Amino acid sequence: MDKRLERARSFLKGLDAILLVSRSNVRYLSGYTGTDAVYVCLQDKDYLFVDARNTLQAKDETKACVVEVSRRWEDIRDVLVEEDVRSLGIESNVLDVDSFIRMKDLFRGIEMTPLGGQLKHMRDLKDEREVACIQEAARISEEALEHVLQQGLVGRTEAEVAFDLEVGMRRRGADAVSFELIVASGPRSAMPHGTASSRVIGKDEVVIIDFGCIYRGYCSDQTVTVLTGRPPDGFEEVYRAVDEARLRALKAVTPGMRASDMDRIARGHLGSRGLDTFFGHGLGHGVGMEVHESPTISSVSEDTLEEGMVFTVEPGVYLPGRFGVRLEDMAVVSDSSCKLLTNIDKGIVRIIDRE
Amino acid sequence: MDKRLERARSFLKGLDAILLVSRSNVRYLSGYTGTDAVYVCLQDKDYLFVDARNTLQAKDETKACVVEVSRRWEDIRDVLVEEDVRSLGIESNVLDVDSFIRMKDLFRGIEMTPLGGQLKHMRDLKDEREVACIQEAARISEEALEHVLQQGLVGRTEAEVAFDLEVGMRRRGADAVSFELIVASGPRSAMPHGTASSRVIGKDEVVIIDFGCIYRGYCSDQTVTVLTGRPPDGFEEVYRAVDEARLRALKAVTPGMRASDMDRIARGHLGSRGLDTFFGHGLGHGVGMEVHESPTISSVSEDTLEEGMVFTVEPGVYLPGRFGVRLEDMAVVSDSSCKLLTNIDKGIVRIIDRE
Repeated sequence: MDKRLERARSFLKGLDAILLVSRSNVRYLSGYTGTDAVYVCLQDKDYLFVDARNTLQAKDETKACVVEVSRRWEDIRDVLVEEDVRSLGIESNVLDVDSFIRMKDLFRGIEMTPLGGQLKHMRDLKDEREVACIQEAARISEEALEHVLQQGLVGRTEAEVAFDLEVGMRRRGADAVSFELIVASGPRSAMPHGTASSRVIGKDEVVIIDFGCIYRGYCSDQTVTVLTGRPPDGFEEVYRAVDEARLRALKAVTPGMRASDMDRIARGHLGSRGLDTFFGHGLGHGVGMEVHESPTISSVSEDTLEEGMVFTVEPGVYLPGRFGVRLEDMAVVSDSSCKLLTNIDKGIVRIIDRE
Repeated sequence: MDKRLERARSFLKGLDAILLVSRSNVRYLSGYTGTDAVYVCLQDKDYLFVDARNTLQAKDETKACVVEVSRRWEDIRDVLVEEDVRSLGIESNVLDVDSFIRMKDLFRGIEMTPLGGQLKHMRDLKDEREVACIQEAARISEEALEHVLQQGLVGRTEAEVAFDLEVGMRRRGADAVSFELIVASGPRSAMPHGTASSRVIGKDEVVIIDFGCIYRGYCSDQTVTVLTGRPPDGFEEVYRAVDEARLRALKAVTPGMRASDMDRIARGHLGSRGLDTFFGHGLGHGVGMEVHESPTISSVSEDTLEEGMVFTVEPGVYLPGRFGVRLEDMAVVSDSSCKLLTNIDKGIVRIIDRE
């Protein structure tokens, strides 16, 4: 049996069926790339429910499942009853409350179990083809970034830079950007999620560029922090501390390690420099069909690193009103450590528009 | 008081507070354009909960609400308790089941009421500024389409055409596309949701282009069906029937009309030509901060048209293996009828690459 379906079956554990609604998991299991679908996985059979608009595409893209031309809850119920389903696991981390209430009303006699906490791990372990797609997404995005940086940053708006970067990635074969690109310059670099604005990038500024694209359905995610001339006061120390935190976390990776320990290592290093209070987010996250997916790499994560997991390491320090530094790499857990999937060396501060 | 907050308060109806999680409604009420936020609206006070990554941006963008630096459910609970909230309306059409279970566990003593069915109407009535943004989004997208069509379609892949169209919209001031653009040619035009593929567009083919962009947070949505030469057998009759269905539905619009009646008029006309069985989706949908929002315009819709609603009318006929035709306009309900917000005349079949 297909490894992915086997993986889905592993969540059944005594349940008659699992019902999935997230676009990513539906695509992962069925191959269907469209929207508005419901996937039902039984012990020995799989159903994909799509409405009439999407039927042709669904039949075209799927192999191992029965395509039903409706995604109304009533019609799904009829199939569940016909298949004698009494217990049903649901993707509760994605399913909305109104649909759940409606299902509870319609699916009489079927016990529903929220499986969100488990099902979000469906795609944790990437196979070689998946890792290759993620790596190619990273490569495309890096080539596009290099092209943009060579044109210089000073005098252009953050939005222009972001747009050129996006077009560059698309022209090189990306399906799309993997998230709204971040280009945050000057004091805006202290905003960890400052998407590109109409601010004109000036000389002697810090610029954080957080960028990634999607290649054949798989995302990349990476962050560089560059200078447009001389650094602001205190920049070098912060940059070095963040870079060391990044390296220490990456070097510590082994299969079986707790994700929270990785966070602790990076945070501890920043703490030793008195900077941990300016690091207000988790160290990283899984990357795959979604740019943020399981595992979570933070102080409160309960996840354990396993061979085949792809994740980011992205320590950052944000000094309000002054500047920020974030350095982000993407790596895959190997049998003994981890292997970088991003190629830009963050060890040396890059200066763009040097006069 | 701000009209939008007044609108939000109108959903309170005896409840102490409403909790919103959808990015669109949070932005609509607070002005905050980022992700991962929770908005709580009390009788006389509003809170925005964001995590540390987004605090600076949130404080920058919002005016009328208190920004709390956490979006953990525990911290939200503490504020609700402090504000003596006993009854809470939730955005159940968006909130996921796992969060709901967590809230039920944490929010002891607070009764939660699912308000999804009502809250999805929050942004139904657009003001002048909103309509102007939607109209500008349509105008930008039309200018970009014209530019693309003038370069011809034959010999290019659907994906190339979609990409050029997207870049054209972005260069003309769009924030982004409002959905994954559809360019479906030849037999693929019979797929109502066939996003752009690597298929090379040939001579004498039908091409459906469904396109739109976002301008200052507001979406446009429009569809044209063009020919690359001579039409396939039966095309003219189908095109005429779809066009008449579109016009009949638009001409019937008055405030107070049931949305299902609009669908019935268009569907009835296609039925009179024996084509209604090939029209497998609803007639239209609301458009605003989201490209698909309330009202729903379908045979089962319970919505009523009101002055200020912006909606699409998009009848289509899809003949599997042969071709499809869809024509889509966007309009706003006026005090007596409706006003088109799209400008491309669909009355005459446009032929691209005529030899």
